[in-house]
Amino acid sequence: MSERGLLIVLSGPSGVGKGTVRKEIFSDENTNLQYSISMTTRSPREGEIDGVDYFFKSRSEFEKLIEENKLLEWAEYVGNYYGTPIEYVEETLQSGKDVMLEIEVQGALKVRNAFPEGLFIFLAPPSLSELKNRIQTRGTETEELINNRMTVAKEEIEMMDAYDYVVENDKVELACERIKAIVVAEHCRRERVAPRYKKMLEVDERC
Amino acid sequence: MSERGLLIVLSGPSGVGKGTVRKEIFSDENTNLQYSISMTTRSPREGEIDGVDYFFKSRSEFEKLIEENKLLEWAEYVGNYYGTPIEYVEETLQSGKDVMLEIEVQGALKVRNAFPEGLFIFLAPPSLSELKNRIQTRGTETEELINNRMTVAKEEIEMMDAYDYVVENDKVELACERIKAIVVAEHCRRERVAPRYKKMLEVDERC
Repeated sequence: MSERGLLIVLSGPSGVGKGTVRKEIFSDENTNLQYSISMTTRSPREGEIDGVDYFFKSRSEFEKLIEENKLLEWAEYVGNYYGTPIEYVEETLQSGKDVMLEIEVQGALKVRNAFPEGLFIFLAPPSLSELKNRIQTRGTETEELINNRMTVAKEEIEMMDAYDYVVENDKVELACERIKAIVVAEHCRRERVAPRYKKMLEVDERC
Repeated sequence: MSERGLLIVLSGPSGVGKGTVRKEIFSDENTNLQYSISMTTRSPREGEIDGVDYFFKSRSEFEKLIEENKLLEWAEYVGNYYGTPIEYVEETLQSGKDVMLEIEVQGALKVRNAFPEGLFIFLAPPSLSELKNRIQTRGTETEELINNRMTVAKEEIEMMDAYDYVVENDKVELACERIKAIVVAEHCRRERVAPRYKKMLEVDERC
Protein backbone atom coordinates (compact mmCIF):
# COMPACT_ATOMS: atom_id res chain seq x y z
CA MET A 1 0.00 0.00 0.00
CA SER A 2 1.57 3.26 -1.05
CA GLU A 3 1.44 6.43 0.99
CA ARG A 4 -1.17 9.04 0.12
CA GLY A 5 0.12 11.76 -2.22
CA LEU A 6 0.18 15.48 -1.49
CA LEU A 7 -2.29 17.95 -2.93
CA ILE A 8 -0.36 20.96 -4.20
CA VAL A 9 -2.30 24.07 -5.14
CA LEU A 10 -0.42 26.54 -7.31
CA SER A 11 -2.20 29.85 -7.32
CA GLY A 12 -1.68 33.59 -7.39
CA PRO A 13 -3.03 36.80 -8.91
CA SER A 14 -4.04 36.72 -12.56
CA GLY A 15 -1.22 37.45 -14.95
CA VAL A 16 1.48 36.20 -12.58
CA GLY A 17 2.44 33.33 -14.87
CA LYS A 18 0.87 30.32 -13.15
CA GLY A 19 0.31 28.49 -16.46
CA THR A 20 3.89 29.00 -17.65
CA VAL A 21 5.35 27.81 -14.37
CA ARG A 22 3.03 24.80 -14.24
CA LYS A 23 3.91 23.77 -17.80
CA GLU A 24 7.62 24.08 -17.03
CA ILE A 25 7.20 21.84 -13.97
CA PHE A 26 5.40 19.18 -15.99
CA SER A 27 7.96 19.33 -18.80
CA ASP A 28 10.21 17.42 -16.38
CA GLU A 29 9.45 13.77 -17.07
CA ASN A 30 10.96 12.63 -13.79
CA THR A 31 8.32 14.41 -11.76
CA ASN A 32 6.11 12.29 -9.51
CA LEU A 33 3.50 15.05 -9.80
CA GLN A 34 0.22 14.53 -11.57
CA TYR A 35 -1.56 17.51 -13.08
CA SER A 36 -5.18 17.69 -12.02
CA ILE A 37 -7.27 17.59 -15.18
CA SER A 38 -10.06 20.17 -15.13
CA MET A 39 -13.64 19.62 -16.22
CA THR A 40 -15.35 21.96 -18.66
CA THR A 41 -18.54 22.42 -20.64
CA ARG A 42 -16.81 24.11 -23.54
CA SER A 43 -16.34 22.14 -26.76
CA PRO A 44 -13.03 20.35 -27.32
CA ARG A 45 -10.68 22.28 -29.61
CA GLU A 46 -8.90 20.46 -32.37
CA GLY A 47 -6.47 17.93 -30.96
CA GLU A 48 -7.84 18.11 -27.43
CA ILE A 49 -8.51 14.72 -25.88
CA ASP A 50 -11.16 13.93 -23.26
CA GLY A 51 -9.45 12.84 -20.04
CA VAL A 52 -6.11 14.32 -21.09
CA ASP A 53 -6.62 18.02 -21.72
CA TYR A 54 -9.99 18.28 -20.00
CA PHE A 55 -12.90 16.15 -18.96
CA PHE A 56 -15.53 17.40 -21.40
CA LYS A 57 -19.07 17.43 -20.02
CA SER A 58 -22.46 18.77 -21.00
CA ARG A 59 -23.99 21.64 -19.03
CA SER A 60 -26.51 19.34 -17.37
CA GLU A 61 -23.80 16.84 -16.38
CA PHE A 62 -21.71 19.66 -14.93
CA GLU A 63 -24.64 21.16 -13.03
CA LYS A 64 -25.47 17.74 -11.61
CA LEU A 65 -21.90 17.49 -10.27
CA ILE A 66 -22.22 20.95 -8.73
CA GLU A 67 -25.45 19.91 -7.01
CA GLU A 68 -23.92 16.65 -5.80
CA ASN A 69 -20.95 18.54 -4.36
CA LYS A 70 -18.52 16.59 -6.53
CA LEU A 71 -16.37 19.56 -7.56
CA LEU A 72 -13.57 20.90 -5.43
CA GLU A 73 -14.12 24.31 -6.97
CA TRP A 74 -15.81 25.64 -10.06
CA ALA A 75 -16.47 28.91 -11.88
CA GLU A 76 -18.20 30.14 -15.00
CA TYR A 77 -16.20 32.03 -17.65
CA VAL A 78 -17.66 33.33 -20.89
CA GLY A 79 -20.69 31.08 -20.66
CA ASN A 80 -18.82 27.88 -19.90
CA TYR A 81 -18.24 26.05 -16.67
CA TYR A 82 -14.75 25.08 -15.51
CA GLY A 83 -14.06 23.06 -12.38
CA THR A 84 -11.97 20.50 -10.55
CA PRO A 85 -13.55 17.07 -10.03
CA ILE A 86 -12.96 15.73 -6.52
CA GLU A 87 -12.99 12.09 -7.62
CA TYR A 88 -10.00 12.38 -9.96
CA VAL A 89 -7.98 14.24 -7.32
CA GLU A 90 -8.91 11.73 -4.61
CA GLU A 91 -8.08 8.69 -6.73
CA THR A 92 -4.70 10.11 -7.73
CA LEU A 93 -3.81 10.99 -4.13
CA GLN A 94 -4.87 7.50 -3.01
CA SER A 95 -2.59 5.97 -5.64
CA GLY A 96 0.33 7.71 -3.90
CA LYS A 97 0.94 10.38 -6.52
CA ASP A 98 1.12 14.07 -5.70
CA VAL A 99 -1.49 16.14 -7.49
CA MET A 100 -0.98 19.71 -8.63
CA LEU A 101 -3.84 22.11 -9.23
CA GLU A 102 -3.24 25.41 -10.97
CA ILE A 103 -6.12 27.71 -10.14
CA GLU A 104 -7.20 31.27 -9.41
CA VAL A 105 -7.08 32.71 -5.90
CA GLN A 106 -10.85 32.41 -5.32
CA GLY A 107 -10.77 28.74 -6.32
CA ALA A 108 -7.76 28.10 -4.08
CA LEU A 109 -9.63 29.45 -1.06
CA LYS A 110 -12.46 26.98 -1.74
CA VAL A 111 -9.99 24.10 -2.06
CA ARG A 112 -8.39 25.17 1.23
CA ASN A 113 -11.72 24.58 2.96
CA ALA A 114 -12.13 21.12 1.43
CA PHE A 115 -8.47 20.06 1.74
CA PRO A 116 -6.92 21.94 4.66
CA GLU A 117 -4.00 19.47 4.60
CA GLY A 118 -3.10 20.59 1.05
CA LEU A 119 0.02 22.57 0.21
CA PHE A 120 -0.92 26.06 -0.89
CA ILE A 121 1.69 27.90 -2.92
CA PHE A 122 1.22 31.56 -3.80
CA LEU A 123 3.08 32.62 -6.92
CA ALA A 124 4.05 36.23 -6.30
CA PRO A 125 4.53 38.70 -9.12
CA PRO A 126 8.07 40.03 -9.36
CA SER A 127 6.43 43.44 -9.63
CA LEU A 128 6.08 43.33 -5.85
CA SER A 129 9.84 43.40 -5.44
CA GLU A 130 10.30 45.75 -8.33
CA LEU A 131 7.94 48.07 -6.55
CA LYS A 132 10.51 48.53 -3.85
CA ASN A 133 13.12 49.60 -6.38
CA ARG A 134 10.63 51.95 -7.99
CA ILE A 135 9.84 53.51 -4.65
CA GLN A 136 13.53 54.02 -3.99
CA THR A 137 14.08 55.67 -7.37
CA ARG A 138 11.13 58.00 -7.13
CA GLY A 139 10.90 60.85 -9.58
CA THR A 140 11.17 58.56 -12.57
CA GLU A 141 7.46 57.70 -12.34
CA THR A 142 4.37 59.74 -11.60
CA GLU A 143 2.81 59.75 -8.13
CA GLU A 144 -0.43 58.38 -9.58
CA LEU A 145 1.25 55.42 -11.24
CA ILE A 146 3.04 54.55 -8.03
CA ASN A 147 -0.17 54.87 -6.00
CA ASN A 148 -2.01 52.55 -8.38
CA ARG A 149 0.73 50.00 -8.09
CA MET A 150 0.68 50.30 -4.32
CA THR A 151 -3.05 49.55 -4.26
CA VAL A 152 -2.65 46.46 -6.43
CA ALA A 153 0.36 45.34 -4.40
CA LYS A 154 -1.58 45.65 -1.14
CA GLU A 155 -4.36 43.47 -2.49
CA GLU A 156 -1.88 40.88 -3.70
CA ILE A 157 -0.03 40.82 -0.39
CA GLU A 158 -3.29 40.34 1.52
CA MET A 159 -4.05 37.29 -0.64
CA MET A 160 -0.86 35.60 0.59
CA ASP A 161 -2.23 35.07 4.08
CA ALA A 162 -4.23 31.98 3.09
CA TYR A 163 -1.14 30.22 1.69
CA ASP A 164 1.62 28.06 3.14
CA TYR A 165 4.36 29.23 0.79
CA VAL A 166 5.12 32.31 -1.27
CA VAL A 167 7.26 31.77 -4.37
CA GLU A 168 8.39 34.78 -6.31
CA ASN A 169 8.12 34.32 -10.07
CA ASP A 170 11.18 36.39 -10.86
CA LYS A 171 12.43 33.76 -13.31
CA VAL A 172 10.36 30.76 -14.41
CA GLU A 173 13.20 28.28 -13.83
CA LEU A 174 13.89 29.66 -10.35
CA ALA A 175 10.20 29.58 -9.44
CA CYS A 176 10.00 25.94 -10.63
CA GLU A 177 13.06 24.95 -8.63
CA ARG A 178 11.56 26.49 -5.50
CA ILE A 179 8.25 24.72 -6.04
CA LYS A 180 9.99 21.39 -6.56
CA ALA A 181 12.05 22.01 -3.41
CA ILE A 182 8.86 22.68 -1.46
CA VAL A 183 7.40 19.36 -2.61
CA VAL A 184 10.59 17.48 -1.65
CA ALA A 185 10.72 19.24 1.73
CA GLU A 186 7.07 18.54 2.51
CA HIS A 187 7.67 14.84 1.93
CA CYS A 188 10.38 15.03 4.61
CA ARG A 189 8.18 16.69 7.25
CA ARG A 190 8.34 14.73 10.46
CA GLU A 191 4.54 14.64 10.84
CA ARG A 192 4.45 12.72 7.55
CA VAL A 193 7.54 10.54 7.91
CA ALA A 194 7.50 9.52 11.60
CA PRO A 195 4.09 7.76 11.47
CA ARG A 196 5.40 5.63 8.60
CA TYR A 197 8.33 4.46 10.74
CA LYS A 198 6.09 3.97 13.76
CA LYS A 199 3.67 1.87 11.75
CA MET A 200 6.58 -0.28 10.58
CA LEU A 201 7.32 -1.27 14.18
CA GLU A 202 3.65 -1.91 14.97
CA VAL A 203 3.44 -4.27 12.04
CA ASP A 204 6.32 -6.23 13.48
CA GLU A 205 4.78 -6.46 16.94
CA ARG A 206 1.70 -8.03 15.46
CA CYS A 207 3.78 -10.79 13.83
CA MET B 1 19.60 45.53 6.09
CA SER B 2 19.50 41.87 5.18
CA GLU B 3 17.00 39.41 6.51
CA ARG B 4 18.00 37.19 9.41
CA GLY B 5 19.34 33.79 8.37
CA LEU B 6 17.94 30.44 9.37
CA LEU B 7 19.46 28.20 12.02
CA ILE B 8 19.59 24.66 10.65
CA VAL B 9 20.37 21.86 13.05
CA LEU B 10 21.48 18.61 11.43
CA SER B 11 21.34 15.81 13.92
CA GLY B 12 20.56 12.14 14.34
CA PRO B 13 21.74 8.99 16.08
CA SER B 14 25.48 8.36 16.23
CA GLY B 15 26.87 6.54 13.25
CA VAL B 16 24.15 7.79 10.89
CA GLY B 17 26.63 9.77 8.78
CA LYS B 18 25.97 13.37 9.90
CA GLY B 19 29.57 14.40 9.28
CA THR B 20 29.69 12.93 5.79
CA VAL B 21 26.43 14.58 4.80
CA ARG B 22 27.48 17.93 6.28
CA LYS B 23 30.82 17.87 4.44
CA GLU B 24 29.07 17.04 1.18
CA ILE B 25 26.72 20.00 1.67
CA PHE B 26 29.61 22.39 2.30
CA SER B 27 31.57 21.06 -0.67
CA ASP B 28 29.06 23.04 -2.77
CA GLU B 29 30.63 26.47 -3.09
CA ASN B 30 27.34 28.07 -4.09
CA THR B 31 25.76 27.39 -0.75
CA ASN B 32 24.61 30.35 1.30
CA LEU B 33 25.02 28.17 4.38
CA GLN B 34 27.65 28.85 6.98
CA TYR B 35 28.99 26.01 9.09
CA SER B 36 28.89 26.77 12.78
CA ILE B 37 32.42 26.47 14.10
CA SER B 38 32.59 24.56 17.36
CA MET B 39 34.64 25.48 20.41
CA THR B 40 36.96 22.99 22.08
CA THR B 41 39.55 22.66 24.82
CA ARG B 42 41.54 20.03 22.99
CA SER B 43 44.85 21.06 21.40
CA PRO B 44 44.88 21.98 17.72
CA ARG B 45 46.09 19.17 15.49
CA GLU B 46 48.61 19.87 12.77
CA GLY B 47 47.12 22.15 10.16
CA GLU B 48 44.07 23.12 12.23
CA ILE B 49 43.44 26.84 12.38
CA ASP B 50 41.78 28.72 15.22
CA GLY B 51 38.50 30.21 14.00
CA VAL B 52 38.37 27.91 10.98
CA ASP B 53 38.38 24.34 12.23
CA TYR B 54 37.56 25.17 15.85
CA PHE B 55 37.73 27.98 18.30
CA PHE B 56 40.47 26.70 20.59
CA LYS B 57 40.08 27.67 24.26
CA SER B 58 41.61 26.80 27.59
CA ARG B 59 39.57 24.84 30.14
CA SER B 60 39.12 27.91 32.33
CA GLU B 61 37.96 30.03 29.35
CA PHE B 62 35.49 27.29 28.35
CA GLU B 63 34.17 26.88 31.89
CA LYS B 64 33.69 30.65 32.15
CA LEU B 65 31.55 30.54 28.96
CA ILE B 66 29.49 27.69 30.42
CA GLU B 67 28.89 29.72 33.58
CA GLU B 68 27.98 32.84 31.60
CA ASN B 69 25.51 30.83 29.51
CA LYS B 70 27.31 31.68 26.31
CA LEU B 71 27.16 28.21 24.77
CA LEU B 72 24.15 26.92 22.89
CA GLU B 73 25.09 23.41 23.93
CA TRP B 74 28.19 21.68 25.19
CA ALA B 75 29.46 18.26 26.23
CA GLU B 76 32.64 16.64 27.52
CA TYR B 77 34.28 13.83 25.53
CA VAL B 78 37.48 12.05 26.55
CA GLY B 79 38.46 14.81 28.94
CA ASN B 80 37.87 17.70 26.54
CA TYR B 81 35.01 20.15 26.23
CA TYR B 82 33.20 20.69 22.93
CA GLY B 83 30.45 23.25 22.44
CA THR B 84 28.67 25.75 20.20
CA PRO B 85 29.26 29.42 20.99
CA ILE B 86 26.04 31.45 20.82
CA GLU B 87 27.80 34.65 19.75
CA TYR B 88 29.18 33.24 16.48
CA VAL B 89 25.81 31.72 15.56
CA GLU B 90 23.97 34.96 16.41
CA GLU B 91 26.35 37.17 14.44
CA THR B 92 26.14 34.93 11.38
CA LEU B 93 22.34 34.80 11.50
CA GLN B 94 22.23 38.59 11.89
CA SER B 95 24.41 38.98 8.80
CA GLY B 96 21.67 37.18 6.82
CA LYS B 97 23.48 33.88 6.37
CA ASP B 98 21.95 30.55 7.25
CA VAL B 99 23.92 28.67 9.87
CA MET B 100 24.19 24.89 10.01
CA LEU B 101 25.03 23.01 13.17
CA GLU B 102 25.90 19.32 13.05
CA ILE B 103 25.42 17.89 16.51
CA GLU B 104 24.32 14.89 18.56
CA VAL B 105 20.70 14.37 19.53
CA GLN B 106 21.18 15.50 23.14
CA GLY B 107 22.78 18.76 21.95
CA ALA B 108 20.00 19.31 19.43
CA LEU B 109 17.39 19.13 22.17
CA LYS B 110 19.24 21.86 24.11
CA VAL B 111 19.43 24.04 20.99
CA ARG B 112 15.71 23.53 20.41
CA ASN B 113 15.04 25.14 23.80
CA ALA B 114 17.26 28.14 23.02
CA PHE B 115 16.22 28.51 19.35
CA PRO B 116 12.68 27.16 18.95
CA GLU B 117 12.50 28.93 15.57
CA GLY B 118 15.40 26.82 14.26
CA LEU B 119 15.00 24.14 11.63
CA PHE B 120 15.63 20.72 13.13
CA ILE B 121 16.52 17.99 10.68
CA PHE B 122 16.78 14.39 11.83
CA LEU B 123 19.04 12.28 9.68
CA ALA B 124 17.52 8.80 9.78
CA PRO B 125 19.62 5.69 9.35
CA PRO B 126 18.69 3.67 6.27
CA SER B 127 18.75 0.68 8.64
CA LEU B 128 15.27 1.76 9.75
CA SER B 129 13.88 1.02 6.30
CA GLU B 130 16.12 -1.99 5.86
CA LEU B 131 14.63 -3.28 9.07
CA LYS B 132 11.31 -3.65 7.36
CA ASN B 133 12.84 -5.77 4.63
CA ARG B 134 14.61 -7.88 7.23
CA ILE B 135 11.36 -8.44 9.09
CA GLN B 136 9.71 -9.53 5.89
CA THR B 137 12.47 -12.01 5.07
CA ARG B 138 12.61 -13.59 8.52
CA GLY B 139 14.49 -16.80 8.96
CA THR B 140 17.65 -15.38 7.47
CA GLU B 141 18.55 -13.75 10.79
CA THR B 142 18.26 -14.85 14.41
CA GLU B 143 15.35 -13.73 16.57
CA GLU B 144 17.80 -12.11 19.00
CA LEU B 145 19.48 -10.04 16.30
CA ILE B 146 16.12 -8.82 15.05
CA ASN B 147 14.95 -7.97 18.58
CA ASN B 148 18.09 -5.95 19.25
CA ARG B 149 17.59 -4.04 16.04
CA MET B 150 13.97 -3.40 16.95
CA THR B 151 14.98 -1.93 20.31
CA VAL B 152 17.50 0.40 18.70
CA ALA B 153 15.01 1.35 15.98
CA LYS B 154 12.35 2.21 18.57
CA GLU B 155 14.74 4.53 20.38
CA GLU B 156 15.73 6.20 17.13
CA ILE B 157 12.14 6.68 16.03
CA GLU B 158 11.25 8.22 19.39
CA MET B 159 14.05 10.76 18.91
CA MET B 160 12.38 12.03 15.73
CA ASP B 161 9.53 13.64 17.62
CA ALA B 162 11.59 16.72 18.54
CA TYR B 163 12.45 17.46 14.90
CA ASP B 164 10.77 19.32 12.04
CA TYR B 165 12.06 17.11 9.26
CA VAL B 166 13.24 13.54 8.86
CA VAL B 167 15.72 12.89 6.05
CA GLU B 168 16.69 9.33 5.31
CA ASN B 169 20.40 8.90 4.67
CA ASP B 170 19.96 6.15 2.10
CA LYS B 171 22.46 7.84 -0.23
CA VAL B 172 24.61 10.80 0.76
CA GLU B 173 23.80 12.76 -2.43
CA LEU B 174 20.06 12.19 -1.99
CA ALA B 175 20.16 13.17 1.67
CA CYS B 176 22.05 16.37 0.72
CA GLU B 177 19.54 17.21 -2.01
CA ARG B 178 16.67 16.81 0.45
CA ILE B 179 18.39 18.98 3.04
CA LYS B 180 19.06 21.70 0.46
CA ALA B 181 15.43 21.48 -0.67
CA ILE B 182 14.28 21.92 2.93
CA VAL B 183 16.37 25.08 3.26
CA VAL B 184 14.99 26.50 -0.03
CA ALA B 185 11.43 25.63 0.99
CA GLU B 186 11.78 27.18 4.43
CA HIS B 187 12.89 30.43 2.84
CA CYS B 188 9.60 30.40 0.90
CA ARG B 189 7.36 29.86 3.93
CA ARG B 190 4.63 32.47 3.99
CA GLU B 191 5.29 33.38 7.64
CA ARG B 192 8.80 34.42 6.56
CA VAL B 193 8.06 36.01 3.20
CA ALA B 194 4.80 37.88 3.77
CA PRO B 195 6.13 40.16 6.55
CA ARG B 196 8.93 41.23 4.19
CA TYR B 197 6.38 42.33 1.59
CA LYS B 198 4.20 43.96 4.23
CA LYS B 199 7.16 45.88 5.60
CA MET B 200 7.94 47.09 2.10
CA LEU B 201 4.56 48.80 1.91
CA GLU B 202 4.89 50.29 5.39
CA VAL B 203 8.22 51.80 4.44
CA ASP B 204 6.53 53.51 1.54
CA GLU B 205 3.75 54.91 3.68
CA ARG B 206 6.28 56.55 5.94
CA CYS B 207 7.93 58.34 2.98
